Amino acid sequence: MLMASDKSGQDTVALMAALGRKARAAARPLAVASADRKRDALLAMADAILRGEDKILAANAIDVKNGEQSGLSGSFMDRLKLDPKRIRDMAEGVRAIAELRDPVGEVIAEWDRPNGLHIERVRTPLGVIGVIYESRPNVTADAGALCLKAGNPVILRGGSDSLNSSAAIHACLVEGLRAAGLPEDAIQLVPTTDRAAVGEMLKGLSGNLDVIVPRGGRSLVERVQNEARVPVFAHLEGICHLYIDKSADLGMAVKIAVNAKMRRTGICGAAETLLVDRAVAGTHLVPVLEALRQAGCEIHADEEVLKAFADAKPATDADWVTEYLDAIISAKLVDGVAGAIEHIETYSSHHTEAIVAEDAAAVERFFNEIDSAILLHNASTQFADGGEFGMGAEIGIATGKMHARGPVGVEQLTSFKYRVRGTGQVRP
Amino acid sequence: MLMASDKSGQDTVALMAALGRKARAAARPLAVASADRKRDALLAMADAILRGEDKILAANAIDVKNGEQSGLSGSFMDRLKLDPKRIRDMAEGVRAIAELRDPVGEVIAEWDRPNGLHIERVRTPLGVIGVIYESRPNVTADAGALCLKAGNPVILRGGSDSLNSSAAIHACLVEGLRAAGLPEDAIQLVPTTDRAAVGEMLKGLSGNLDVIVPRGGRSLVERVQNEARVPVFAHLEGICHLYIDKSADLGMAVKIAVNAKMRRTGICGAAETLLVDRAVAGTHLVPVLEALRQAGCEIHADEEVLKAFADAKPATDADWVTEYLDAIISAKLVDGVAGAIEHIETYSSHHTEAIVAEDAAAVERFFNEIDSAILLHNASTQFADGGEFGMGAEIGIATGKMHARGPVGVEQLTSFKYRVRGTGQVRP
Repeated sequence: MLMASDKSGQDTVALMAALGRKARAAARPLAVASADRKRDALLAMADAILRGEDKILAANAIDVKNGEQSGLSGSFMDRLKLDPKRIRDMAEGVRAIAELRDPVGEVIAEWDRPNGLHIERVRTPLGVIGVIYESRPNVTADAGALCLKAGNPVILRGGSDSLNSSAAIHACLVEGLRAAGLPEDAIQLVPTTDRAAVGEMLKGLSGNLDVIVPRGGRSLVERVQNEARVPVFAHLEGICHLYIDKSADLGMAVKIAVNAKMRRTGICGAAETLLVDRAVAGTHLVPVLEALRQAGCEIHADEEVLKAFADAKPATDADWVTEYLDAIISAKLVDGVAGAIEHIETYSSHHTEAIVAEDAAAVERFFNEIDSAILLHNASTQFADGGEFGMGAEIGIATGKMHARGPVGVEQLTSFKYRVRGTGQVRP
Repeated sequence: MLMASDKSGQDTVALMAALGRKARAAARPLAVASADRKRDALLAMADAILRGEDKILAANAIDVKNGEQSGLSGSFMDRLKLDPKRIRDMAEGVRAIAELRDPVGEVIAEWDRPNGLHIERVRTPLGVIGVIYESRPNVTADAGALCLKAGNPVILRGGSDSLNSSAAIHACLVEGLRAAGLPEDAIQLVPTTDRAAVGEMLKGLSGNLDVIVPRGGRSLVERVQNEARVPVFAHLEGICHLYIDKSADLGMAVKIAVNAKMRRTGICGAAETLLVDRAVAGTHLVPVLEALRQAGCEIHADEEVLKAFADAKPATDADWVTEYLDAIISAKLVDGVAGAIEHIETYSSHHTEAIVAEDAAAVERFFNEIDSAILLHNASTQFADGGEFGMGAEIGIATGKMHARGPVGVEQLTSFKYRVRGTGQVRP
């Protein structure tokens, strides 16, 4: 903590400690808040965001101006820039979270014991959540609303370059909390750009931070994973695979391949590697690659594929572990489902993989032997999304295996406890 | 890692790295092993333990002799010492785990989407588990069997003083794995007493260790929690509370209080603090304390309780945060269920709390507002046990809130993945 040893660092240490204490103090009132009260707060937040459009746009204009002056990249500026439509979408997103079923208090399981004890496992809030994100100011609203719905206080640490925008949005969230009579400290925004703030969060704020959710690029997620002293819901990259089995319907394979790669190339569920069963190299490989090519996709092919499809670049070892997030796909022939499984278990980031096949045995083997969060049969990898799963908004897609895996929605932001009802039972 | 810089430390670093690689290599064959094969292996382990009685007792005799020479405490020696009955119990425990339902592949939830996608959430193994424990050699069998049942490779690091006993038991487990044709590296025992081995496990064996389960005293658990770079299923102490509400049936209160404290004083579910509603100080307090007293319990009472019950020691602030694990209980008057909740939320270790009451509203408030893993109504805190919950054997009671909470049995040693079945769906 070198940064903490300079003046601003020291101020930041004290500031973050205070945020942690206030968040912890908000945990109990939030945990016992009724579903209606939380819903009211979220609806009030959505209204406040709509009413606050001018203020939010004015604050965003400052961030955009600063960003242009400091020469931020075009894609970064695109994520940063807000407009009336994006603000309406943000409000709609919060309203949709308000209408989700409240997870807290839900009985997940219950059973009776021979001695008459009745046992219930019920959902509870998880605790104080820290969200560390980058340019998108709308994460302020999404993450704040999701954590509140699950009864968790949240400390939001947005990107320095979008702090004005995030602060204006955060003010609307606090307005909603106030309107519903919930503690304003339930959703706090780190008010400084001092990077020491992140270091303090990674250290856990003296036990006042229970889990950290990093939302951003690989470097951010890896720093958080390496340095965090508290649990992390990590979303590493999505190196998603599409495997076309010899039993695949060719038309379906073409349609799914183009959608999985090209519908949106910048999302984590976009396919990055195409694996084709060597048994159908003669029939399926070229039509699929041709369709991708015509959709504007660049092909990075291994030697065998290059022989069959010249309009491609030779793939290097790096291609198999690269998340392009762009109109590029790596392509390779494999020996059936066993070869596909071998390649995927070697190179996958365990996010999402899909198989196109009519052979049920091949599908079951693919489903059983691949250890990724999401496996799809005869469907596009781009369905890897909490909303598409019917789970509502998500704070990310977890690629780890602890607590949350796949889409992290309100349910994944809860824990549970056991309630045991007896009639005087003592243990023999 | 000072220890790692000396010779033995360097050997240990290489040794532990190799254990990690072998465990990871065993993960896939284990994850796809059939339920029958795992069951066969566990039954073969139980048989091998019974057949190996003489060898195990001979190895244990060496540990016992060394322990006596190095003057280990009586309670430590009691946990270390094996006899034919304890060995039979160990084999029975493994056999009971063999007969549990196999969690891997179980469909936890499934639903259909409007677009026709069918989504299943299915249990998967969690990954490579590290178990760090102290004197009890039987943990070698319990933990090894539980991890195998859930399809997880395990690295067992037993106490130095019981290494010979653990090695003899471990040999029987490996015999069972071999008999069933499962990889012998599925259950590995750290073969050195070099404490650097623990440091290596806490660092995660280069990503080859997914979760650590510490089983032992507070100092061990705290070291693991503070230093581990991987998730931990921590079992901190059980500072369990028994609250007697003004609506309590006196006879039931007396019976439950004596059982919760005195049935077994050394287990984590034993009550350590008695809270009595001030409204029934005149009727319920003395009979309950008298019954505890007659059962041989020492009372540490706050000032008010002392006035009503002289045969007690004055409680200090330390009493409210002490897990006695002994025939001692702290006692305090509180203002109804609100006062009980306030005290428990302030001092509890969030393990297990019980309320004796006939007033349903008081019970619901106790259940809703206390954030502990297990809450009981009109039942003894000593039911806080995976077996008593019908969950089978457990590797501990988790006092954290991430992933596992309360009894950690086979189900809690699993993760999950999503299987999505389509008919050619692409995302619009």
